[in-house]
Parts: sequence; structure tokens; C-alpha cells
Amino acid sequence: MEGEPTLRLRVFDLNCWAIRYLSKRRQERVRLIGDTLCQEGFDLVLLQEVWSEQDYSDLKVKLSSCYPFSHYFRSGVIGSGLCVFSRFPILDTLLYQYSLNGYPYMLQHGDWFGGKSVGLVIMKISGIIFNVYITHLHAEYCRDKDSYLPHRLVQAWELAQFIRHTSKAADVVLLGGDLNMHPEDVGIRLLCGWTGLQDAFVEATDIKGCKNGCTLVPGNCFTDKSELLPFPLGIRIDYILYKAISSFTVKCEELKTTMGPAPGTDIPFSDHEAVMATLHIQRQGQPVGATLGTADPALADVVTEARTEVGVGLRAAQQQRYSSGRMAVLALLLLLLQAVAALGTLAGLGADQPFPKLSFCLLAFLALGVLVLATGLHLFHTMEVKMLHGTEDQMWMALRALQERPSEG
Amino acid sequence: MEGEPTLRLRVFDLNCWAIRYLSKRRQERVRLIGDTLCQEGFDLVLLQEVWSEQDYSDLKVKLSSCYPFSHYFRSGVIGSGLCVFSRFPILDTLLYQYSLNGYPYMLQHGDWFGGKSVGLVIMKISGIIFNVYITHLHAEYCRDKDSYLPHRLVQAWELAQFIRHTSKAADVVLLGGDLNMHPEDVGIRLLCGWTGLQDAFVEATDIKGCKNGCTLVPGNCFTDKSELLPFPLGIRIDYILYKAISSFTVKCEELKTTMGPAPGTDIPFSDHEAVMATLHIQRQGQPVGATLGTADPALADVVTEARTEVGVGLRAAQQQRYSSGRMAVLALLLLLLQAVAALGTLAGLGADQPFPKLSFCLLAFLALGVLVLATGLHLFHTMEVKMLHGTEDQMWMALRALQERPSEG
Repeated sequence: MEGEPTLRLRVFDLNCWAIRYLSKRRQERVRLIGDTLCQEGFDLVLLQEVWSEQDYSDLKVKLSSCYPFSHYFRSGVIGSGLCVFSRFPILDTLLYQYSLNGYPYMLQHGDWFGGKSVGLVIMKISGIIFNVYITHLHAEYCRDKDSYLPHRLVQAWELAQFIRHTSKAADVVLLGGDLNMHPEDVGIRLLCGWTGLQDAFVEATDIKGCKNGCTLVPGNCFTDKSELLPFPLGIRIDYILYKAISSFTVKCEELKTTMGPAPGTDIPFSDHEAVMATLHIQRQGQPVGATLGTADPALADVVTEARTEVGVGLRAAQQQRYSSGRMAVLALLLLLLQAVAALGTLAGLGADQPFPKLSFCLLAFLALGVLVLATGLHLFHTMEVKMLHGTEDQMWMALRALQERPSEG
Repeated sequence: MEGEPTLRLRVFDLNCWAIRYLSKRRQERVRLIGDTLCQEGFDLVLLQEVWSEQDYSDLKVKLSSCYPFSHYFRSGVIGSGLCVFSRFPILDTLLYQYSLNGYPYMLQHGDWFGGKSVGLVIMKISGIIFNVYITHLHAEYCRDKDSYLPHRLVQAWELAQFIRHTSKAADVVLLGGDLNMHPEDVGIRLLCGWTGLQDAFVEATDIKGCKNGCTLVPGNCFTDKSELLPFPLGIRIDYILYKAISSFTVKCEELKTTMGPAPGTDIPFSDHEAVMATLHIQRQGQPVGATLGTADPALADVVTEARTEVGVGLRAAQQQRYSSGRMAVLALLLLLLQAVAALGTLAGLGADQPFPKLSFCLLAFLALGVLVLATGLHLFHTMEVKMLHGTEDQMWMALRALQERPSEG
């Protein structure tokens, strides 16, 4: 079968930063993204942060001739923000919502409301089965004291597990998205190591665009410059990853990022730069066995490192569960105490003193409010503990499997 | 390869009804289940409603010699209740939480707190790869007016999709659990039609135990007799389903249910009867193509029927989203009105009249309480709408695929 024609696939990935009412010049940028996608004629377009279904519908209408197939993944309160446009038919889709995704009460970090997920789209191009995954992991708001690291690691682990378990019949696996992790971060090493996915930027023969493939750069007029102070060149958090299973090889010929303003305009597409990869897929004579990306001992170290961080998150969540539970119990005690006092007054005890009705009612409502909120928090942190604990267990099982495995990889 | 020895697999499935503080004679029954499992020596045990991790740990200790491998799936506030015990090593696991699972405010129907999920356990027995799924779908509290039907159908659909996408490398697929659906219900037809799974009860050569394979029977002292009035023989809602992929065949030699009290005792294992299947797995000479269980036109009808029900749920959820949103707006308006009144009083307007401080505060707290609760409800029903809508979309895509497919199945 050697010598079969090579399939050339051009992939576009962008975090569009299209939050209704909040993102600057959103509609203008969405129009610009649509126009460019029409002109450039990619094969596959992976977009994140398309939060408004109206924006998706507008894009769908505009792109219907050049990308006749598309899918929007619905989840969470405001949607997953994930959508895919394709020149080739989409055969099937599946959505997996991450079990942890920040906190609903952190309103200033709206991640929880987005229902962060990974979307799977299955396509058959020239007889080759593609499993295309698109995702957006929890944002990192403070790198020095990243309280969301355990949640992001649970997401990276669930992403890796989901890819492993759903891609067994695929010839080629592609993953695109905003992973909110730097290339050297433990989550990226875990994801690539545990799935065998390769980083298009690392593998590319030809690299164009921002230095080091950065996708969040100070040169972009929409980025928060203060956040990028420790990284004068910018950071790389948007990725295209790939892997060939069975008897195929994938090579990245070119990897390109946009650089600030879009050609012919004064604004960039988004606060992120787009990542564009040109991939060459070829059938091999010899089937390549499904292997993990990292040698077993090194991978075991990565899983151990990730598991330690998840453990840190677990202990923090247990502490929060305890605090909120204690607060609920205290509020309940206060309410009971008040009920006793009220009953006492009704029974005529202390009738010589005036009963402070107003303060009494205020206190009762305060106690009731605290009780409801603390109970809600307690339930939420109990779920968080369950999921962090479950992930720790799964990672332990993976470590055991890595250690027990005869050196086959 | 024909004539290879047949693998005989004995599977045990039971909804244990082990809710701490609520289920009658729980500890006694869990001990009884453990003792029986040890004596009987099944190959694979699938348990649901083991809500307490302590019960799981106790079972694990007791069963360690006869079932050395086990896994407990953690999810939700109180856990998924799902666990697996096996004579054979568990290679890998994955948990998928259903996106819809009842309502947190329906405290009397605790389903939401259980975090209903499907658990996947991968095993290799005699060189055959088994994907074993265990699940427990949302309960049906009123069959005539089943308000949870859309949620259960979303779960059945997600279960089917999860099985389809994760079982592509498996030789044999097994699913056991309490599906809370009667054999003729649309959800069962959807699940079997869309995955190709076969019902062990229907396929079994030899059937023992309760008539019609019922698992919720009036003869069980723990069942609610009033619920079973329309079904004097009982109902069948616990299943063992299976399917062979690639070059294997599975046959169900015997299907058995327990019948009320366990031998030598006065109590049954649970309010459900256990289902036990003896399966014969044999390698075939000819690989069998992966086919759907139901012919395309009939399957299209089933998907259409399910989609209609999901649509009914979607409209109900949209109505609830609207009502809760309107309630939140009204509460906000009342609060604003009160703020204006309070400011007016502070500014000296109406100083000749006594200001009703107590009633004013009570009203303000009431409005605040309604605002918080209605906003929470609005967010919840928004998510519900998103997921029902997403499922409707996916079913539509499935219908299109069924219609477009050349008659291959």
C-alpha cells in the first residue's frame, strides 16, 4: 500500500473571545473571522469561546458554501463555546463535560458557567477515519498561586482518558483548543504522555508567526499586558496536537500563528492568536502499534507529579467542605436558639422587658441566609472532594498499570 | 480458529438499595450479599446503590479472596453507588456523568444527589477484551405522569452514545444495571437499537426465577406494594445486556433472578431481585461486522419517538426557565422599590408617619430570598434547556445518518 497519495489537511484553531456584552468589538471580529475563513479555505476549523449561539448561526450562514458541515456543542449555562466547521461530512459527535470546572460563586472567573467540555467529531476523509477533539480548559488567573490547578489537572486527565477510550477505531486523532497550560506544564506532559499525542509546534518542519509559537502575545491590542509581564515574548497555550493510530503517519509540514491585527484591518481576530497547521497524512505499509507518547518510567513520574497536585487540591477541598459544613451547623444552632427564645417570650417569660422584634428578625434572616448558602457550599465541595478523590484513584490505577506492564513501549 | 474452547462467564447484577439511615436492615443485607457472592463464585459482580463507601470497603474486604479486583465509581454528592467486583484483573476504568439527572430541589427524589453515571471497566479474559458497563438511570416515580422521562431518555441516549464510542476496540460488550425502564419502553428500544445490545432475558435458552424475569415484584417484602398494583406479576427494570463485536459470539445459556428471601434467611438481598446470567463466549471463524440492533427504518422510528419526548421536556424546561427568570426579575423590582422607599424616608419624606421597620425588613429579606432562589433555578433550568436541546440536535443528526445510509445493515 506504500506510495499511496498523501492527504494534506489544513487545520485552523482559535479562541475567539466572543463573550456577549463583554468582549471588545465582538461582532466586528466575528465577521472578520468568518470572512478570513472563507477566503483561506481551510479543511477544518476549531473555534472556542463562541459563547453566543447567534454568533455561531451567523458564522454558519456565512461559511455554508466553503464549510458545509458544522457542529456546535451545547453545555453549561451559557454553552461550551466550542464549535467545528468542516469541508468534510461530520459522521458523529459526542460531548464529555468535565466533572470539575471551577466554582459557581467565583462570578468574576466565569469558567463554571461555561460548562467546560471536550467535544468529539468523527469524520471520514479519503477513507481515513479522523477523531477530532476540541476543548477549552479552565483558565489560569494567577500563575504563582494557581488555585485552579487541581481542577485543570482533573480536566487534562479526563481529556486524556476520554481520547484514549474513544479513539480506538480512529486512524488519526486530532486535538485543537485552548488548553490554558504552558508547554512545559505538568498537564500538557500528562496529556501527551498518556495519549501519545504529538505537539504540531514541536514536530513542524516550518514555523511561521509569533516567536515560540506563542498565542497570547503582548503585541495583541486586546491582551492584558500586566499578565504577560513575566513573559515578554508571550505564552503558548493554544495547541494543535495529533497522533496516527493503526497504519498511518501524520507529519506537520507547517505551523503558523497570526500576529496581531488581521491583514487589511486594525484589529486582531481575538485576544488569542490563531494556530494553523498543515498536516500530511499517509498510509504506511506496516501498522504502527498504539504506543504511549512517553517511555513508561518518565510517564510514571509525570502521573505521580499530577497526582500530587490533585492531592493538594483534594486537601483544600476537604478543608472547604469542613468549613462550610461547620458554618451551616452554627447557623442552624443560632436559629434553634432563636426559636427557643421566641417560644420563651410567647410563654410569657421575660414579659417585663421589651422584646427586640426588629433585631430578632434581622438575625433570624441572616442565620437562615447563612444556613442556605453554607449548605449549598457544603454540597458543592462534597462533590469536588468526590471527583478529586476519584481522579487520584484513577491515576493510582494508571501508575500501577505502568509499573506492572512488561517493557513493551 | 473454529472449535476454540468456549468461555463461560457468570454475571451477577443487583440494585442493593443500601442507603445509609434510610434503607431497612441495610447492614444485615450487605453482609448477606457479601456471603452469597463468596459462596456462589460468580466471575463478575455489578452492584448499584452501594451509596456508602464504607459498605463498599466492607464488601471489598470480605470478597478479596474470591473477587480480588474491584472498582468503586465516585461521583455526585453521595457517590454514584456503582461498583464492580471481578475475578479477573481490571485494566482501565472511565466514568461518564449524565448531563441531566433530575432536580436538586426535589429532595424527596434524591436522584440528583447521586450523580447518576455510567461506569466503564475494561478487562481481558482468556485473551478476549471485555468492555463492561454499569449504570443506574433516573427513577420513575409516577408512570402515568412521568416528569422525569425526558431526563431518563437523555441518559439512555448518552449511555448508548458512550457505549458506541468507547467500545470500538472491545471484543465483547456487557451492560448491567437498573435502567428504571420496562422492556417495551422507548428508552430500552433506543438503547438496544442504537448500540446493537441484546437482552439476556430475551436471548436466554433457560430462564429461572420470577415470571417474565421481573426484578421488582410484590412478593419482595421491601417493595412498595401500591406502586406495583397495576403490575401484579411485578416489573422488569434490571437488565444484563450484551453484544459481541469483531469475531466473537455471545450466547446466554441461563438467566435467573432471585425470588424474595435469600436462602436460609427471612429477608431478600434488596427491594430489587438480583439478575444472574451465564454467558458463553466463543471465537468465530468469520468476523461479524458491527451492526446496529434494529433495522434502519424501525430504528429511525424509535429515535423519532425518543426525540419527540425530549422535545416535550425541552418545552417544559423552557417554561420553567421563563417562570423562574420572571420571578427573579419581580423580586429584584420589589427590592429596588424598597430601596427607593427607604431612601425617601431617610431624606425626610413622610416623616410624620411612623416607618414600619419590622415589616419592611421582613419584606426585604423575603424578596432577597426569592431573588437568590429564583436566580439559582433560572441558571439550573437554562442548563437543562441547553442539554435537552443538544440531545435533540444529536438525535436529529442520528436520524439524518440513518436516512442517508445505504441499506447496509
